[in-house]
Amino acid sequence: MDAIEVIRAKRDRGELTTEQIDWVIGAYTRGDVADEQMSALAMAILLNGMNRREIADWTQAMIRSGERMDWSRLDRPTADKHSTGGVGDKITLPLAPLVAACGAYVPQLSGRGLGHTGGTLDKMEAIPGWRASLSNDEMLGVLRAAGAVVCAAGSGLAPADKKLYALRDVTGTVESIPLIASSIMSKKIAEGTGSLVLDVKVGSGAFMKNVPDARELAETMVALGTDAGVRTVALLTAMDRPLGRAVGNALEVEESVEVLAGGGPADVVELTVRLAREMLAAAGVSASKDPETALKDGSAMDAWRRMIAAQGGDPDALLPRAAETMTVEAPASGVLTRLDAYAVGLAAWRLGAGRARKEDPVSAGAGVVLHAKPGDLVRAGQPLLTLHTDETWRFDRAVEALEDACAVGEASGEQLPLVIDRITAA
Amino acid sequence: MDAIEVIRAKRDRGELTTEQIDWVIGAYTRGDVADEQMSALAMAILLNGMNRREIADWTQAMIRSGERMDWSRLDRPTADKHSTGGVGDKITLPLAPLVAACGAYVPQLSGRGLGHTGGTLDKMEAIPGWRASLSNDEMLGVLRAAGAVVCAAGSGLAPADKKLYALRDVTGTVESIPLIASSIMSKKIAEGTGSLVLDVKVGSGAFMKNVPDARELAETMVALGTDAGVRTVALLTAMDRPLGRAVGNALEVEESVEVLAGGGPADVVELTVRLAREMLAAAGVSASKDPETALKDGSAMDAWRRMIAAQGGDPDALLPRAAETMTVEAPASGVLTRLDAYAVGLAAWRLGAGRARKEDPVSAGAGVVLHAKPGDLVRAGQPLLTLHTDETWRFDRAVEALEDACAVGEASGEQLPLVIDRITAA
Repeated sequence: MDAIEVIRAKRDRGELTTEQIDWVIGAYTRGDVADEQMSALAMAILLNGMNRREIADWTQAMIRSGERMDWSRLDRPTADKHSTGGVGDKITLPLAPLVAACGAYVPQLSGRGLGHTGGTLDKMEAIPGWRASLSNDEMLGVLRAAGAVVCAAGSGLAPADKKLYALRDVTGTVESIPLIASSIMSKKIAEGTGSLVLDVKVGSGAFMKNVPDARELAETMVALGTDAGVRTVALLTAMDRPLGRAVGNALEVEESVEVLAGGGPADVVELTVRLAREMLAAAGVSASKDPETALKDGSAMDAWRRMIAAQGGDPDALLPRAAETMTVEAPASGVLTRLDAYAVGLAAWRLGAGRARKEDPVSAGAGVVLHAKPGDLVRAGQPLLTLHTDETWRFDRAVEALEDACAVGEASGEQLPLVIDRITAA
Repeated sequence: MDAIEVIRAKRDRGELTTEQIDWVIGAYTRGDVADEQMSALAMAILLNGMNRREIADWTQAMIRSGERMDWSRLDRPTADKHSTGGVGDKITLPLAPLVAACGAYVPQLSGRGLGHTGGTLDKMEAIPGWRASLSNDEMLGVLRAAGAVVCAAGSGLAPADKKLYALRDVTGTVESIPLIASSIMSKKIAEGTGSLVLDVKVGSGAFMKNVPDARELAETMVALGTDAGVRTVALLTAMDRPLGRAVGNALEVEESVEVLAGGGPADVVELTVRLAREMLAAAGVSASKDPETALKDGSAMDAWRRMIAAQGGDPDALLPRAAETMTVEAPASGVLTRLDAYAVGLAAWRLGAGRARKEDPVSAGAGVVLHAKPGDLVRAGQPLLTLHTDETWRFDRAVEALEDACAVGEASGEQLPLVIDRITAA
């Protein structure tokens, strides 16, 4: 077998065989297939697609390129959640300890932000002392102590995906549903979770801009998980506006702690509870208590504090704050009909909350706080957003990003429902 | 500008701007665009195409990546021919001195064979002493002495094309008409010829297997040449069976010398004369004599002998012969209805006449001699082909290649006319 044969088969709209997929992923991981060959294949896949069997084979081959974790020694079922990424999406932070408080183990391997969407690890690292990198034994220790662990994936998990993801990033081959689905699912299946809830975001601030694309991605991933023996369900959720009122690293930790304390913005609470119930159901746990109760009675907060402490963090430490703030005012009086998620995400990124390249640092304190959400009444001149940054020169480009971000009108504009749809195995 | 922006534009079926094309070709030549980015772009071009304006810009950008030759100091017009390659296609050998004998200069930069098709330089190198590599000044000297020169292109000509061609070869992105056309035409235009006749081969032994594809390639190249101010015309010619009776290096030189001596197979003579007339017309030369006369009266042979001698070759030297021969007999009596060009080319290649990799040597003596051509009557058991090789172990795989190469029937089978069509600027 050689790379050109495999590339030609997909280029000419053929179906790749299981053997071809196994060979090409293995040879690419070993370095026997060159980057320039894999990028040509990725472009052919992007343009000509893969069917369900090919995607499943591709995912399995990436899983087999590395180690597979095993939680079967634990005495409770494991549940995991994955979000395709959005603006203000801090849900993992309250969700992981909440589900732990209700009776499942949550071994949550997370990532860092790139571009306008934030990353869970960047947010958690705003907590003084908290460590993202754990050995497998340390992970197990945190899980036993707190019921939940949020940490970075080790390099042994799906190394083919890591290599391919970096390649796709520089070759214009990211936007392929088969490649996105297999990338996410190879990592999640290799993580060894027994059940998985996917939060597929839809809207300007998400990777998938419209419902049909998001539905296709969700259906593809649910099928992949189900075929691999993972009980998988997906929600399509709104990302036309930011989630919650805080966008940034420390700012989102603060908001998450409010939720764990029984307060916080209604949309964050609603989505956290909904996802928690889905995770418990997928894990087959007859919950020791309802998630809504666990947020009110302090048990979710207890799990959070144990989890932070077990990873070296101080749950009582003051969080970093940015040195400078600037207020953006409402341009008119009326109903706020639109507050665009992408624009807010871009502004937060430009304020220092995100990174342009993988090796860049992020600012813990930078970000955007919303004082109104779409549907709210606003008065001209009232504070609409507060921008936070460590460096005042960043304000100009952040304000530029927000130029057409909001609209004020007479009646409530159309916005996506928070939970648009629920996708289960066919 | 960056590579991802250009890749995405073509991936999403957009038209690349002149600026994007100039930038990406320049940056790739300099090494600022990586191989894995260019191969993704090449695949997107292969699958989504380029329009005439994009192909012209792509070609011009490749020309500008290197030097451009200039023959304006010469006192006669220049004419050039390019064949897309076939089996037994030795036409350049008699054609270049023939056109020189009729009044035009022929500066013919040629290539080596790869795969089942032969290369002009490999054939010429069968002549003891003959040198393919000349400086620009040496080229000019040979042209002035003989009227024609056949030599290797210097490395300064369209270096972007050299780099891109090697990349396409390993990434399954060869078979794209816009990329094939711009590759050929960038070299030919950079060579500085005033007129160009394209011999676009069609059939099993050619790159283009059918007439519509060959016509599209021919039309694209004629348009490119015309837009660049080169008087360009193309013939579509038959490559369903080999051209002439000899396939191999020294074997084809021998056959070419027969043609220059006024003999040789009818199809080689016909195509040589037809192409010579096209070249003289495209060059705007009122020929000092008709090509048919120049073959008969020895003037083309004189030009050949001067050209060989001027490049260090001995026109009277005995050519190398392969040590071993083997006869393949006609399987039945009747009309030879088919003798497949690809099969014969593959057999000659396996006998040692061609190379699998650029760095491989070729055997001067190896090849195949045909004792009958499609349309001829044959008797069962009569010699149909003689295989020549230096190493007897090569016979088996050559015979294997010829297994279904010929058919004998009752009436003449269908074959392509030698000259199928003539394409000129619209």
